[in-house]
Amino acid sequence: MSKKLTSRATDYSKWYNELVVKADLAENSGVRGMMVIKPYGYAIWEKMQAELDKMFKETGHENAYFPLFIPKSYFSKEASHVDGFAKECAVVTHYRLKNDADGKVIVDPAAKLDEELIVRPTSETIIWDTYKRWIESYRDLPLLINQWANVVRWEMRTRLFLRTAEFLWQEGHTAHATKAEALAEAEQMHQVYTTFAQNFMAMPVIKGRKTANERFAGALETFTIEALMQDGKALQAGTSHFLGQSFSKAFDVKFTNKEGKQENVWATSWGVTTRLIGALIMTHSDDNGLVLPPKLAPIQVVIVPIFRNDEQLDLITEKVDPIIKALRANGVSVKFDHRTTHKPGWKFAEYELKGVPLRIAIGPRDIENGTVELARRDTLSKEIVQQDNLVETITDLLEEIQNTLYNKALSFRDTHITEVNSFEEFKTVLEEKGGFIAAHWDGTVETEHKIKELTKATIRCIALDSKEEAGNCVLTGAPSKQRVLFAKAY
Amino acid sequence: MSKKLTSRATDYSKWYNELVVKADLAENSGVRGMMVIKPYGYAIWEKMQAELDKMFKETGHENAYFPLFIPKSYFSKEASHVDGFAKECAVVTHYRLKNDADGKVIVDPAAKLDEELIVRPTSETIIWDTYKRWIESYRDLPLLINQWANVVRWEMRTRLFLRTAEFLWQEGHTAHATKAEALAEAEQMHQVYTTFAQNFMAMPVIKGRKTANERFAGALETFTIEALMQDGKALQAGTSHFLGQSFSKAFDVKFTNKEGKQENVWATSWGVTTRLIGALIMTHSDDNGLVLPPKLAPIQVVIVPIFRNDEQLDLITEKVDPIIKALRANGVSVKFDHRTTHKPGWKFAEYELKGVPLRIAIGPRDIENGTVELARRDTLSKEIVQQDNLVETITDLLEEIQNTLYNKALSFRDTHITEVNSFEEFKTVLEEKGGFIAAHWDGTVETEHKIKELTKATIRCIALDSKEEAGNCVLTGAPSKQRVLFAKAY
Repeated sequence: MSKKLTSRATDYSKWYNELVVKADLAENSGVRGMMVIKPYGYAIWEKMQAELDKMFKETGHENAYFPLFIPKSYFSKEASHVDGFAKECAVVTHYRLKNDADGKVIVDPAAKLDEELIVRPTSETIIWDTYKRWIESYRDLPLLINQWANVVRWEMRTRLFLRTAEFLWQEGHTAHATKAEALAEAEQMHQVYTTFAQNFMAMPVIKGRKTANERFAGALETFTIEALMQDGKALQAGTSHFLGQSFSKAFDVKFTNKEGKQENVWATSWGVTTRLIGALIMTHSDDNGLVLPPKLAPIQVVIVPIFRNDEQLDLITEKVDPIIKALRANGVSVKFDHRTTHKPGWKFAEYELKGVPLRIAIGPRDIENGTVELARRDTLSKEIVQQDNLVETITDLLEEIQNTLYNKALSFRDTHITEVNSFEEFKTVLEEKGGFIAAHWDGTVETEHKIKELTKATIRCIALDSKEEAGNCVLTGAPSKQRVLFAKAY
Repeated sequence: MSKKLTSRATDYSKWYNELVVKADLAENSGVRGMMVIKPYGYAIWEKMQAELDKMFKETGHENAYFPLFIPKSYFSKEASHVDGFAKECAVVTHYRLKNDADGKVIVDPAAKLDEELIVRPTSETIIWDTYKRWIESYRDLPLLINQWANVVRWEMRTRLFLRTAEFLWQEGHTAHATKAEALAEAEQMHQVYTTFAQNFMAMPVIKGRKTANERFAGALETFTIEALMQDGKALQAGTSHFLGQSFSKAFDVKFTNKEGKQENVWATSWGVTTRLIGALIMTHSDDNGLVLPPKLAPIQVVIVPIFRNDEQLDLITEKVDPIIKALRANGVSVKFDHRTTHKPGWKFAEYELKGVPLRIAIGPRDIENGTVELARRDTLSKEIVQQDNLVETITDLLEEIQNTLYNKALSFRDTHITEVNSFEEFKTVLEEKGGFIAAHWDGTVETEHKIKELTKATIRCIALDSKEEAGNCVLTGAPSKQRVLFAKAY
């Protein structure tokens, strides 16, 4: 398979699909809409998981595991939730197969479930059914639980990482004694996601609130982080929901407060998914392949020896071994690719495609001169550096690359937030420039729908840092107190 | 809820069920046969995962993720596999719910799948369907992949951790160019499981091979580790399968060898599950509650302050803080339970029930004397020790507890392997003593079935270290070349 990618300018969507497959991140499986996450893609997810899990635990959360299947009746208990989720679910109806008279495998009609089971699209219902047993008194609160799991939503149009019928995620589900505490929790996790996106993914995000229309089914408030992809489309990267008492009322979860009175519990839920890998790709990568921020790169440094014979390779290996040891001792993940089955040029292209942040090439002349060639993936620049202090040079460079990637993405994002004051301008900017459009909106769901129908743009969020400003809705001219951010989105 | 457990002598099975629930490890959910793994139980699983994952990576394996659903037709491709697995599967037949005329949620009859999807009971079929795309040449081999995932097997009689309709596990699936390499891989992972059981779970195991009748559906050889529970019943704790070419033939996975010829690939698969938590419980715990080996204990040391007022607590906290820091710096996980909502006695009972290996109590008199009270969970012994060198005292003790637990379990196991030479003796030992019975067997599946029918005992394994010895089958008297190990099993 050729490693050459379609350029982003030619066809951004094709570029993305090719990149995911050619960089060995994921591929479609034989099951409609479901992907196989390949080892290199999964290694990125493991790095994301490790960092997020640490942040969750540092903020007092514990992991647990709840059933994959949810009885159908549970979904009916929370009215707005069932509308939002029930429609796109995989349904288990039978529990046995058998061989028919011809020896063919068929579903055993005798093994029909009394009540159908839904493969979890999200776990609020099964978890609140459980919390009913766990919560009696204010002493049991807050309950701060997270789950790492797979979920299924029957999507009709799927794309690797961005929208798949099954995906991996984490879902936090917390229970609190007061409204203020639950709100503070939802805000805290919103900040955790922001920090993760910025510090680890090197991806700037806008912190905001969703409009009522775009909220999670059952939430009173949905906080979101919205990122901007290189093609000018937005991507919702993580959400944190203040659920009020809707689930505790639906599942009758009460606690005895300090005064001995029964009250309904307050709730939050929050999640990020393997979709973040899609966001990571579309934030940094280029026409040569993946570009990974060092903090999430499975391989941070690759060393490619340039040699003609075993003797030369031995010399290089001897030189390189202590460097590898020293780098690993400093927490840098290094790969020494001394395979003889592939030529250096092939390896260079391979690691460029796979987005390894730093490449070291070392040949016989470098051995003589006490140097190595160091190539940066982000800038594609090369330089000859001394072997002395190489560990420090590399750890500094990795940090610099991380920062450079963030600043580049931030600059792109900041130049792609455009204030518009008329619907004509709105449409022009959306078509010609893309990005976020800061516009006045009259606050009605009708206008939201109408704008989406006319332009495909949706309200991504009401930014938390947006200032009050009197204006008129771009569509209806009705009065508005602040601008909201529109964009076409993934 | 009373913390007092039914004693093991009174009712072992009841003791186990009560312990799992009272120690906050897991509980039954509202979904038939499916459990909720509570934070404390999940923390043990996380510790197991971390160690196993490290061992898998050190032996060259990478993680990946494959679809939850498997098209029904995939199962039919490997004949013996379908017989072993198809029967106990959850089947997805529909992909949408809707509201009926009365607003009730029903399965949308229009959303019926053309081909039913099976919720994976194990992933050989979907993975070998994928490997067909990944393997072309000998350069692509070996392929060494592991998956951490949930699986579903529709069990009729379930027990927390030991047998549940959904469980968590890892499944390794490897592909090799030669039979010898695949066999070596299966043996290597058999050893990895043995090392993990012994060094981390402090659980001695017998390494053996399964009889043809007890093999994994589709395997040519199944290696097993068999542990012995305190009630004299065996528990299969992990298996590693040499699959020959059965799956590569069923899914037509061939590679071009160095001579340019097409050959079928050789395969292995291997797995351990959340059942290991059940094994851990039943190996070490006692009538007071859980006993956890330090290497897998979520909390290794708990510090309980004894105080009457805030001033005393402040004094203790001041003394304890540097100890906690020093312990954590040495990789010891410590909890300082200074809650004022519960009395010291309640806390002592709580951490005893939860199997925390070491408990430190410290009160005003200890502050004066420069001492603490140290209590071991395994021996229930207490001693007063000096605060000086406490970190060394504790790290040494944790190691000693780990070894003591292993040796105790080993001694129990070794005194429960009994050689018998007649069927009368077989039945008597099985009834009165339990444990493994080393007996001659004529090598036929008929005899295996007959003995199971008469006694409920099965052949757990043919131990790898069993020596050749001429004898006669305990049931039929037919000649036999070696003893095999029978037991009643979980």
